[in-house]
Amino acid sequence: MATFTHLVRFLAKDGQVYYGDALLPAGVTDISKATQAKVIKGDIFGQHRVTEQVADVRMLLAPLAREDIRTVRCLGLNYEQHAKESNLPIPQYPVLFFKPVTAIAGPTDDIPVGQMAQEGEGLDYECELVIVIGKEARDVPESKALEYVLGYAVGNDVSHRDWQIKRGGGQWNLGKGFDGWAPFGPGIVSSKVISDPNALHISTKLNGKTVQSSSTKDMIFSVAKTIAFLSRSTTLLPGDLIFTGTPQGVGMGRKPALWMKNGDQVEVSLEGVGSCVNRVVYDKLASKL
Amino acid sequence: MATFTHLVRFLAKDGQVYYGDALLPAGVTDISKATQAKVIKGDIFGQHRVTEQVADVRMLLAPLAREDIRTVRCLGLNYEQHAKESNLPIPQYPVLFFKPVTAIAGPTDDIPVGQMAQEGEGLDYECELVIVIGKEARDVPESKALEYVLGYAVGNDVSHRDWQIKRGGGQWNLGKGFDGWAPFGPGIVSSKVISDPNALHISTKLNGKTVQSSSTKDMIFSVAKTIAFLSRSTTLLPGDLIFTGTPQGVGMGRKPALWMKNGDQVEVSLEGVGSCVNRVVYDKLASKL
Repeated sequence: MATFTHLVRFLAKDGQVYYGDALLPAGVTDISKATQAKVIKGDIFGQHRVTEQVADVRMLLAPLAREDIRTVRCLGLNYEQHAKESNLPIPQYPVLFFKPVTAIAGPTDDIPVGQMAQEGEGLDYECELVIVIGKEARDVPESKALEYVLGYAVGNDVSHRDWQIKRGGGQWNLGKGFDGWAPFGPGIVSSKVISDPNALHISTKLNGKTVQSSSTKDMIFSVAKTIAFLSRSTTLLPGDLIFTGTPQGVGMGRKPALWMKNGDQVEVSLEGVGSCVNRVVYDKLASKL
Repeated sequence: MATFTHLVRFLAKDGQVYYGDALLPAGVTDISKATQAKVIKGDIFGQHRVTEQVADVRMLLAPLAREDIRTVRCLGLNYEQHAKESNLPIPQYPVLFFKPVTAIAGPTDDIPVGQMAQEGEGLDYECELVIVIGKEARDVPESKALEYVLGYAVGNDVSHRDWQIKRGGGQWNLGKGFDGWAPFGPGIVSSKVISDPNALHISTKLNGKTVQSSSTKDMIFSVAKTIAFLSRSTTLLPGDLIFTGTPQGVGMGRKPALWMKNGDQVEVSLEGVGSCVNRVVYDKLASKL
């Protein structure tokens, strides 16, 4: 459906914000390396065209504007090894939670840690393949599910384990939904380019050290199964995001636990898409000033 | 902040859809009785004015258009007696889940029950006070929280107990998020009119018989506490909805359990606001045709 291959949203050197189709040097697939893009005019989910106007990228932004994103769904426990490290059973059905649109952030934005998120402990990373829905989908069969995909990005399902698990009354949403806790990007690679989203290497580096390294082929519910399931009795809208769960290696699963702290740099990467590199930045608290 | 007292969105007899300020006969507070409204021009959350143009109401719609709603938050177990009937402990913090925007429906819309929602059992009703956020709120103190409210409506947090509890991997979102499972309305009463949202009678009738009857004063976390808590490290946006939990009397809490079925009429009411009356309508399934 899309006419682009590597959708980016960016602040250009001319000071404007554009949607564009990233121009990547031969052999490069990491969109975060893009320095130029062909400007896209029109509605990303409808009538649009990739123009011949080339703009210089100053900074890549979240690949969809907040207004273009409706609902952010996320799966829990969708990699077998991660379910095991979490001491939880392999789910029979996809386990669904949500983030608010205010959690959306760009591929190089800081991850802000506000006062509430500085209480307790357990600041954790989760690299995830992110599905971007391209057209309305309801009750779609698994065999046709990928036809509803605009493309794929990589995201970090930033999580606060105390608020998620110990203080959430059993519901995970609270500890995963703080402002800026769903950075994604660096762009959206069209499903024309990635024909099999369940054969991609996915990884996380914390301060340069690899802490998660797996393949999307280890998902319990594949991308197609996930879309088919989530569309049951439920309309997925263009611009809906689905974070598809994380592989083993999260900080919670380690002995001792490994929590992110102020100033840490966390990088999530997906083969064929690229990386988001975000820094953890604690808000200064009034009480500490 | 608002210039209206009883915000409605409606299909008028002239065939247009308007926002309006409902004109209610003296002594009437149930917005669902409105037959006329003064048309509102402009942005409900920004510059707007109530005009002297009076339009005839053909049908009340969801009081905000889907595009004007960003995130739908819901609290679980926020009435003490309901927590008890659910055999769950009184929560220490508000328990948060979400519905997608596609769950939003109007005060007289049918509640569609698709194929997935016809599997298993446990179709249940939950009358709830719905907070409509009027301006951006982050880290607001409880003492100022009500200043961020546009107004209040009543909603039905329609739930499928099997998908919510038994098949959701412990996460409630799935069994509460089907298309059309968050009817709300019949309008939004300004927080200028309702100065104390925690002193209102709230109730549900199923096929004309009262099944829930309580007061919002029995909330564990008051409206002000809820807003203050949910705004911690998290920006609430204009047009965000917060369903604030349901009192005792749900079908799940009864012996034997009382589930809604095809053709049932369910009415949720809130004092000073009015009622939503919705009919349960099972989709015809291909396999049964």
